[in-house]
Amino acid sequence: MHTENEAYIVRTQRSFNRQPAMHALNAELVVKSPGSVEITFPYMAQFTQQNDYMHAGILSTILDSACGYAALSIAPEDADVLTVEFKVNLLRPGVGDTFKAIGQVVKAGKTISVADATLYSSTLGESKPVATMTATIMNVYK
Amino acid sequence: MHTENEAYIVRTQRSFNRQPAMHALNAELVVKSPGSVEITFPYMAQFTQQNDYMHAGILSTILDSACGYAALSIAPEDADVLTVEFKVNLLRPGVGDTFKAIGQVVKAGKTISVADATLYSSTLGESKPVATMTATIMNVYK
Amino acid sequence: MHTENEAYIVRTQRSFNRQPAMHALNAELVVKSPGSVEITFPYMAQFTQQNDYMHAGILSTILDSACGYAALSIAPEDADVLTVEFKVNLLRPGVGDTFKAIGQVVKAGKTISVADATLYSSTLGESKPVATMTATIMNVYK
Amino acid sequence: MHTENEAYIVRTQRSFNRQPAMHALNAELVVKSPGSVEITFPYMAQFTQQNDYMHAGILSTILDSACGYAALSIAPEDADVLTVEFKVNLLRPGVGDTFKAIGQVVKAGKTISVADATLYSSTLGESKPVATMTATIMNVYK
Repeated sequence: MHTENEAYIVRTQRSFNRQPAMHALNAELVVKSPGSVEITFPYMAQFTQQNDYMHAGILSTILDSACGYAALSIAPEDADVLTVEFKVNLLRPGVGDTFKAIGQVVKAGKTISVADATLYSSTLGESKPVATMTATIMNVYK
Repeated sequence: MHTENEAYIVRTQRSFNRQPAMHALNAELVVKSPGSVEITFPYMAQFTQQNDYMHAGILSTILDSACGYAALSIAPEDADVLTVEFKVNLLRPGVGDTFKAIGQVVKAGKTISVADATLYSSTLGESKPVATMTATIMNVYK
Repeated sequence: MHTENEAYIVRTQRSFNRQPAMHALNAELVVKSPGSVEITFPYMAQFTQQNDYMHAGILSTILDSACGYAALSIAPEDADVLTVEFKVNLLRPGVGDTFKAIGQVVKAGKTISVADATLYSSTLGESKPVATMTATIMNVYK
Repeated sequence: MHTENEAYIVRTQRSFNRQPAMHALNAELVVKSPGSVEITFPYMAQFTQQNDYMHAGILSTILDSACGYAALSIAPEDADVLTVEFKVNLLRPGVGDTFKAIGQVVKAGKTISVADATLYSSTLGESKPVATMTATIMNVYK
């Protein structure tokens, strides 16, 4: 049975909880399955740009964590993960009541993995894609 | 004579000042010349990831603003700018006393411009490149 | 009834047929539905790199066309499309008997669209993802 | 004294000469210094798209080789290089008499390196930037 006590979930959640940036953004992680995570966070006026949209970089902060934790959830036990690079496309303004990023591993390798994430905004219950990321992630063996 | 009162500088600075995210990161903008800007900001523990490095997304927030304001500084007067997409490469851990992003326009077009930015960390006076961005920016005519 | 004579298919196919690069790669296009296309092409030894893999740039040539024609298939009638930028991740060596790129529009806009494509190799009937692209495409009104 | 017989030049040139794709594009490599190369190639009508511009993917083929050989020229002797991913921005139409790509390493690492390349077209002696690439390259130890 799938439980929140499984080792890969505990490990991923623990690393997430050690990220001050995720606390600053009031972000919460759910590990859905090996290689797949969701991060939710609210609209926060202090992280907007000049048009009251959430700053693209702040959205990228969540997308990067979504890709990284998707990768960490299936990384070898003796490895930590590090983002090598990412690319973000902005599809719609970053407005809404809440946001959810869904991250998943596209290809897991011994050294290099690729993960994708899509960020959705939710306004009055209606959900729309706001941004996408493709990230290259490296396993760093301890 | 180059002065801080030139219209393109005033306009760029004014938009920057309206970005709450830049205030949250204690960031300061200097418009160096048409198409070229610098943004400085300090290390802030609340925006780090699990290894005490500044979160890659937070660095991207500054890099995105550096690219966007470089583009805005030479955009037509009746245009605002919007980031279409960007790509970030992480070269070194985001640690240091202070950081500086240098953004410049690579190619200005009527609709689409391309800008580059490099982020440097400074530790005890020694400067090192930490991350680079290439961004595609759209002029949105009002 | 869906037929190959529908206007959007005819228009997309016609533009594809005018691309000498697609002929040079022995590539064939099938427009699957509005915003979705497939391009198939064979392994060609003359377009490999030093390890006998198809060159990443050659794979990108097909991926770019897959994204561009997905976008063209739903572009306004008075618009042509132009690639603004793309990003490619290489997942596996470009080897196999034949290749197929599946391109689809992620978000269609009046000026800017975003499309994704995945390239699969097929060896003895077994299919594997080899590379992915995300592309930003501009509608250029005539 | 700098000569064409230096080991890093011989090694880089030798690998380039083993790329059939570079022969197909009539491309020629010059290793300028450790971490820096140039590749020249002519306009070839058979590799164009529907507007008689060189296909963006074909330009990317040269840019990818420029980044890869810049990286190989300073890679450890027991390592080969493999492109992990790249991003291309298209600045101007790919037209001209001849093209030159200048590739250089931005940051060399033990496992991962980052390289940049810019492609210039030359028409009647006038040179203009046509496209830029940032590539992530992996050292693969034999």
